[in-house]
Amino acid sequence: MRIAVAGLGLIGGSLLRALDAAGHQVIGFDADPATRDAARAAGFQVAESLAEAASGSELTALGVPMPVLPQLITELAGYDGLVTDVTSVKGPVRDLMRAHGVGRFVGGHPMAGKEISGFAASEKDLFAGCAWVLCLEPGETDLDDWLALARLFTGMGARVVPATAGEHDAAVAKISHVPHLFAAVLAAQISNDPLAGALGAGSFRDGTRVAATRAELTAAMCGGNAGPVGRELRRLIGQLEEIADALGADDLVQLLEVDELVPLLKPGEQARRAWPATAGEPSAMAVDETALLELGRSGGWVTSVNASDVVTLRPETDRNDP
Amino acid sequence: MRIAVAGLGLIGGSLLRALDAAGHQVIGFDADPATRDAARAAGFQVAESLAEAASGSELTALGVPMPVLPQLITELAGYDGLVTDVTSVKGPVRDLMRAHGVGRFVGGHPMAGKEISGFAASEKDLFAGCAWVLCLEPGETDLDDWLALARLFTGMGARVVPATAGEHDAAVAKISHVPHLFAAVLAAQISNDPLAGALGAGSFRDGTRVAATRAELTAAMCGGNAGPVGRELRRLIGQLEEIADALGADDLVQLLEVDELVPLLKPGEQARRAWPATAGEPSAMAVDETALLELGRSGGWVTSVNASDVVTLRPETDRNDP
Repeated sequence: MRIAVAGLGLIGGSLLRALDAAGHQVIGFDADPATRDAARAAGFQVAESLAEAASGSELTALGVPMPVLPQLITELAGYDGLVTDVTSVKGPVRDLMRAHGVGRFVGGHPMAGKEISGFAASEKDLFAGCAWVLCLEPGETDLDDWLALARLFTGMGARVVPATAGEHDAAVAKISHVPHLFAAVLAAQISNDPLAGALGAGSFRDGTRVAATRAELTAAMCGGNAGPVGRELRRLIGQLEEIADALGADDLVQLLEVDELVPLLKPGEQARRAWPATAGEPSAMAVDETALLELGRSGGWVTSVNASDVVTLRPETDRNDP
Repeated sequence: MRIAVAGLGLIGGSLLRALDAAGHQVIGFDADPATRDAARAAGFQVAESLAEAASGSELTALGVPMPVLPQLITELAGYDGLVTDVTSVKGPVRDLMRAHGVGRFVGGHPMAGKEISGFAASEKDLFAGCAWVLCLEPGETDLDDWLALARLFTGMGARVVPATAGEHDAAVAKISHVPHLFAAVLAAQISNDPLAGALGAGSFRDGTRVAATRAELTAAMCGGNAGPVGRELRRLIGQLEEIADALGADDLVQLLEVDELVPLLKPGEQARRAWPATAGEPSAMAVDETALLELGRSGGWVTSVNASDVVTLRPETDRNDP
């Protein structure tokens, strides 16, 4: 099938390359003329507008940042093909598509990235082995459309994770957005304390790595998922307050407080030691909306899509039992 | 000079090896007979008691964990040589030494470690390039004793950082202890959320790495520095609350909140990008208690000790200016 990819940065450009490498006919578009030229120079067919790229394409993948989406999708008026996206927040995109009457939409989010961005950084193997969330809204998403995308992305080597937009946004708040906020306040500790900076070693280095991300990008990422991030952040603040209470006053001997601290730290130790989960044996599963969402909730994913079933992997149960 | 090292785990064992490699006469001791045998098998002279090791040694280095120190130093009654230690908290050790009347004491803390512990993991080059805090208490520490240790440790390749015990404890709360607590609550987020665990990538991996440390060890480390850790933790909780407030309510469009977020995240970005500081040019400095403490507070350290001065390095000023 012919596929249009609009927005040819790191993710969109890599998607164009990966779909091309998988044998699909692809056509790209980017609002930036220099990027269009670069994609043409790399041998790709490139349209001069989104409407031109989408026209005649069975699927249009939107590879632009969230703030650009509202304007861009107005150019899809009247388009009756399937639409997907790759932005890192899924609830607001779902609402946007509903508001604009984009009928055949399945939101996606490949958990892939690099330190550098732009078409020049794109590569056809960026998604090999990466988790690619494909949103499945009960009673709303067309299962055939979902399966068509799952077939496409598993064919590029991605692990396709079924989840609702809400489940996705809550999960990425935990594993990406809140970690960025924690890193920022940890890193700021040394702002006016060169002695502390000079003593920083492994735990500081790793705990603050993503704080080097431009503050504007982190703010946009977290602000775009403000509800789930705010809720999760407040929940963790509550846990940190429990730890601060257990540390108690500034006494010389702290044996009692240590005993109180251990149960507050043990869940994190156990969770981190069990992560990442080891995949179990592959198994076939009949296609079913509820079963797919259960697969995602249990930490599993789809590895391939066949005529009558999907092949899935789940974490080994033993490894994840507490 | 002859040097006794008591406690031959990773740090003590490595210190024994490093001092030996630097041409000093060393004698070890460990409460565990198997460890004593291992050190003897490695070719070292090993005593059967701390008193025996210390007797005739000009310096005794205590390489045991904080909880073992109170009992161990009773065996140093009457010893008139210099005593140092390597534990990760310095205020409580200073108080302990005062309480036991250990006169010639200079506390130390090498910022070195490995994932594995014990004499078998020790190595003579463990301290090459590592920051080694040497405590300097105004009006209390004998400057000649301090310089003797600074000469010894810089001779092993360590960067000797002058600081008071209080300054040390506040700094390690920031760059090690609080990061361990943050990692623990971040990691625990996926305890009952396999979907989030399946989506975790780089920011989760790095932000939670030290959460895999045994909870008992983290609790002992933080509990042993409870005052500074508790104060710093409460300060950072306040900053996280400001961020949570800026995230505001669960609205679709969050542009205002993003603008509020940036200034809360910018200090962390700037601090992390400037870390680690680049060392400036070496310069000689006359030995002076106040000047040495200022050196440490400015992020600098001692690289060698000469007859009349010390050679120091400070961070390049340009790099650390905001």
